[in-house]
Amino acid sequence: MMEIVIKPIGVVRVDVDDDIVRSSLDGVSGRIEIFEEYSDGLEGIDGFSNIIVLAYLHKVSEEQRRVLKVKHKRLIRLGFSIDELPEVGVFCTDSPHRPVPIALTIVKLLGRKENILYVENLDLYDGTPVLDIKPYTSDRVIKDLKFPEWYSRLMKKVEEKLGRETNL
Amino acid sequence: MMEIVIKPIGVVRVDVDDDIVRSSLDGVSGRIEIFEEYSDGLEGIDGFSNIIVLAYLHKVSEEQRRVLKVKHKRLIRLGFSIDELPEVGVFCTDSPHRPVPIALTIVKLLGRKENILYVENLDLYDGTPVLDIKPYTSDRVIKDLKFPEWYSRLMKKVEEKLGRETNL
Repeated sequence: MMEIVIKPIGVVRVDVDDDIVRSSLDGVSGRIEIFEEYSDGLEGIDGFSNIIVLAYLHKVSEEQRRVLKVKHKRLIRLGFSIDELPEVGVFCTDSPHRPVPIALTIVKLLGRKENILYVENLDLYDGTPVLDIKPYTSDRVIKDLKFPEWYSRLMKKVEEKLGRETNL
Repeated sequence: MMEIVIKPIGVVRVDVDDDIVRSSLDGVSGRIEIFEEYSDGLEGIDGFSNIIVLAYLHKVSEEQRRVLKVKHKRLIRLGFSIDELPEVGVFCTDSPHRPVPIALTIVKLLGRKENILYVENLDLYDGTPVLDIKPYTSDRVIKDLKFPEWYSRLMKKVEEKLGRETNL
């Protein structure tokens, strides 16, 4: 199959270490710096409360790209034991370990100054290449969602432990 | 800036011509064929009513990748005149004409047979390389959305003409 070559349109900037980003349940504040040659593409974005960032997880190793099944290990921090966590395919999780390590992060857009977007809820490390920005439009909200049993069960346990929902 | 090389994990299969896909307001039915080497990554996906497909729009030309401002020309079909449509940056639209032509498509998952996902609402042509599959989990639903004035105005006009919402 073909190889695809892409060039990032910008970069993530956060002022905290990777560890802080990784351990933050709701992400951190930061900036998306869009390279100046693409600035015109941002016109009209002001006023969207949320935007979608597609980013390339450049720190994922070759070995981690070969991972196809994972456990939600992030939940161990919430008091889960490793045995409680189901092992599932990477395509039904947001694990960074996946064949094509592209992240989809929905962030709150706080404001913009020229080619710099100020955002909240970033789960991306400083220096992460940004591939695309898309608006969170009303058609992204899907109603009548259904989930597999393993997911519903896990979500319920998270809510019991945390007292609220979190990203799974 | 760096160049990133990625290899698709699968391919979109639809049994209709590009024209039909392009002119369909809610997308078409089809299949996502995940290459066999990645099949294990699908385990546990059954039961999600909706999944997110990231795909590489391979038919977008070099010239179309240089486009930074667009009008929602798809709406001309609904009776809009070109002058009624605001010109906005590509990063606040889903235009396929953008520097890194990656599509984010939310599809309904009807079922799976081994490495083949049967889906609805595809706005992707037959043969489109698939880069990633992610679950549509409950945290993708954002509440209290706000939009720019140009977007709200456009959406309102679409609803008046069409009698319902559509993807913008």
